[in-house]
Amino acid sequence: MTEHIQQRPFDLLNKVLGKQVLVRLKSNLNIRGRITSFDAHMNIVMEEAEELDGGETKAKLGTILLRGGNIIFVSPA
Amino acid sequence: MTEHIQQRPFDLLNKVLGKQVLVRLKSNLNIRGRITSFDAHMNIVMEEAEELDGGETKAKLGTILLRGGNIIFVSPA
Amino acid sequence: MTEHIQQRPFDLLNKVLGKQVLVRLKSNLNIRGRITSFDAHMNIVMEEAEELDGGETKAKLGTILLRGGNIIFVSPA
Amino acid sequence: MTEHIQQRPFDLLNKVLGKQVLVRLKSNLNIRGRITSFDAHMNIVMEEAEELDGGETKAKLGTILLRGGNIIFVSPA
Amino acid sequence: MTEHIQQRPFDLLNKVLGKQVLVRLKSNLNIRGRITSFDAHMNIVMEEAEELDGGETKAKLGTILLRGGNIIFVSPA
Amino acid sequence: MTEHIQQRPFDLLNKVLGKQVLVRLKSNLNIRGRITSFDAHMNIVMEEAEELDGGETKAKLGTILLRGGNIIFVSPA
Amino acid sequence: MTEHIQQRPFDLLNKVLGKQVLVRLKSNLNIRGRITSFDAHMNIVMEEAEELDGGETKAKLGTILLRGGNIIFVSPA
Repeated sequence: MTEHIQQRPFDLLNKVLGKQVLVRLKSNLNIRGRITSFDAHMNIVMEEAEELDGGETKAKLGTILLRGGNIIFVSPA
Repeated sequence: MTEHIQQRPFDLLNKVLGKQVLVRLKSNLNIRGRITSFDAHMNIVMEEAEELDGGETKAKLGTILLRGGNIIFVSPA
Repeated sequence: MTEHIQQRPFDLLNKVLGKQVLVRLKSNLNIRGRITSFDAHMNIVMEEAEELDGGETKAKLGTILLRGGNIIFVSPA
Repeated sequence: MTEHIQQRPFDLLNKVLGKQVLVRLKSNLNIRGRITSFDAHMNIVMEEAEELDGGETKAKLGTILLRGGNIIFVSPA
Repeated sequence: MTEHIQQRPFDLLNKVLGKQVLVRLKSNLNIRGRITSFDAHMNIVMEEAEELDGGETKAKLGTILLRGGNIIFVSPA
Repeated sequence: MTEHIQQRPFDLLNKVLGKQVLVRLKSNLNIRGRITSFDAHMNIVMEEAEELDGGETKAKLGTILLRGGNIIFVSPA
Repeated sequence: MTEHIQQRPFDLLNKVLGKQVLVRLKSNLNIRGRITSFDAHMNIVMEEAEELDGGETKAKLGTILLRGGNIIFVSPA
């Protein structure tokens, strides 16, 4: 166990607030955007969000409120 | 972290009350309409709601009460 | 925000009690009937309920108790 | 709002106790039988239950305890 | 309402403890065996359990602990 | 009701701690291994776990922590 | 019951903190990486995470926060 070990998983979301993240959803949807808020259910607001298809922008979504229940993972982009 | 960062995800819904939003649902359904109320489960009432298919109006739904559990994301339209 | 904005989503169900509503369910089922009661889980009793297929009556169901968990949306018909 | 409006959805189950009901389940299963008990999760015991296929008896099930979570609707038969 | 009406659905499980039951599961699985215990989540232990296919024994499972969440119905066999 | 009747379903897991069990999961996955711990959600740690395909070893998994929510049944192997 | 028997399933995650694990997810996704935190919902942060396809690296994901609800099992890699 090193200094890289974080206290709790949600600390990662705190660390990336205001930065770009990639979110993979259950329905095979990938969304990239800037995370500006989240809550304990992993509901997330993203700005300048884009739906991706094979790394390419498929649709510009703007600001969105994502329900946490559909998320598979969130990753700093 | 900038002045754009909101306190909690549901603040976005408060901000758009009375305005048009686009809601994407699990069953590949897209609905656009004016949000007039919501609760902590993300249950949402929309007026002048329309079901969309590829950006086109597929069906006029009028006023609807959407169950939050089926929502993937809500976006100001 | 106008005078149309309701306090809570379930207020819509209160307003239409005793009137016709259309309910869309997850399993691609559309049911129309007169709503006579509901609870906090969105369980709903409808009278003179009919299963619809493309707007046409597919089957007469009479009085039914619908489980809220399968509902996508409820709309005044 | 008329005298037909019930207090709560589960009152319908109370009213039909001991009588025939039709239950539609998520897995496209229709079961008809006499309801003899239920609880707050909509778990239901039916006697002389039959699985139906297009209105015809497909299988005689006898007495069954149905889990509420799979129910789409219950209707007095 | 007759003397057949039971107090609560789980009373049926109490009545058949130690006897053969048939359990239908969500994943189109039918299991027959002797129920020896259950809890409030409908988790069930069965002994001499068999997986059935069209009424025939497909596989002998011996003693199993079934998760209640997958059960559609339980019936005295 | 005989001496075979157990108090609660989870007693079966206690009885087989340290022994081989077969676990069937929702995604049509069968895993065999030695159960070394479990909790009230039926989360299970197995050692020397193997994924099975038609009774044959398909992949050696070693030690795994299985989420209870995906389990259909657990059986002493 | 031997000295190998652990107190609770989550002890396994504590034991492998900072080390490589393999996570199998419901949507047939396999992810390998170094686990650096987890919580009671099995939400997990992994670093240097990779999506695998038949044992081969399909995509480098970097640091990810995985939602526990999608996990089938976690295994020390």
